[in-house]
Amino acid sequence: MTIRYPNGKIYNNVTHNTPVKNHTYSNRGMSLEEELNETNAYYTEHSIACIHKKPVPIQIVKVDYPQRSAAVIKEAYFKQPSTTDYNGVYKGRYIDFEAKETQNKTSFPLQNIHPHQIQHIKQVLAHDGIAFFIIKFAHHDETYFLKGQDIVQFWTRHEEGGRKSITKQEIELCGHRIQSGLHPRIDYIRILDMLYFS
Amino acid sequence: MTIRYPNGKIYNNVTHNTPVKNHTYSNRGMSLEEELNETNAYYTEHSIACIHKKPVPIQIVKVDYPQRSAAVIKEAYFKQPSTTDYNGVYKGRYIDFEAKETQNKTSFPLQNIHPHQIQHIKQVLAHDGIAFFIIKFAHHDETYFLKGQDIVQFWTRHEEGGRKSITKQEIELCGHRIQSGLHPRIDYIRILDMLYFS
Repeated sequence: MTIRYPNGKIYNNVTHNTPVKNHTYSNRGMSLEEELNETNAYYTEHSIACIHKKPVPIQIVKVDYPQRSAAVIKEAYFKQPSTTDYNGVYKGRYIDFEAKETQNKTSFPLQNIHPHQIQHIKQVLAHDGIAFFIIKFAHHDETYFLKGQDIVQFWTRHEEGGRKSITKQEIELCGHRIQSGLHPRIDYIRILDMLYFS
Repeated sequence: MTIRYPNGKIYNNVTHNTPVKNHTYSNRGMSLEEELNETNAYYTEHSIACIHKKPVPIQIVKVDYPQRSAAVIKEAYFKQPSTTDYNGVYKGRYIDFEAKETQNKTSFPLQNIHPHQIQHIKQVLAHDGIAFFIIKFAHHDETYFLKGQDIVQFWTRHEEGGRKSITKQEIELCGHRIQSGLHPRIDYIRILDMLYFS
């Protein structure tokens, strides 16, 4: 089932709308968003960090008030997100990231990123926040941490006429592989510790 | 027009659904949310801070795909927010706050706050983030900054059998009046500078 933005672009993050299908401890069938939600819940429960996914932005057009109880939204549309998906606090620092999953085997297409998300990452970095991407190559079941600065650089290369994607090899070189585990599933805080708090 | 949560509780933040009524430079008729949106836009434009309102959390039940273009949400409900309304970064630090407007003249009723918002504020403080409330007494047109630590303390007093509200006098004593201006309207960063960055 394909959901599209008003401009026709496909909306990829529909897992908020579908129940979690997989309750076993296998990673198979779990989307990156589900894995990150479990990871963030783990960080919260263990008082490690306080990081949450933001709600999906919705443009509400029509609301019905059938009784004196709950209001029902009868017409609404998905809005293009103007920031990134996740933010929160770790050791006092502001943490901000976007998570993207690709079926592509050899590169991460930059069309997965909206220009205003790059703007947002630049702003976060300008205010000394920690911004990054978590990129999952679904086919290889490999997840990488890529600094906001690197994303901005690859984006600029594209704007200046360079390639429209980041090769997997570039991500392997510039980024950091995040090992999958059970608790937590995607322990990106370990990378943060190494890069910013050691 | 009253919007209610499924549990019957009144939903107060409907300004996302209504167009800005007032385009003059008068504060009259502007809701606290509108004033804060303008303030945050000012901070972003002037590279002062990067702070945004989170989207309103919605539970989507039914989505229609009328053509190959935009998806239409046909049934959805307002969800109780599990965190606060605003967060972002200022000088590297994590900033997190909730904004509340009251028509009450002499006190701020604690029933305006959800218990999980207090939980969230405690977590933010535990991770060394900066958490606070912005409380506007609409009748007096006075806006106050109240530290998260103080909100938690007044909440605890209530839990231990004390009064169900914070008196305006207590807010005047513990909090800090935010002067209204034109650019920005509610300059809460000035209070942050005084309390945390001086």
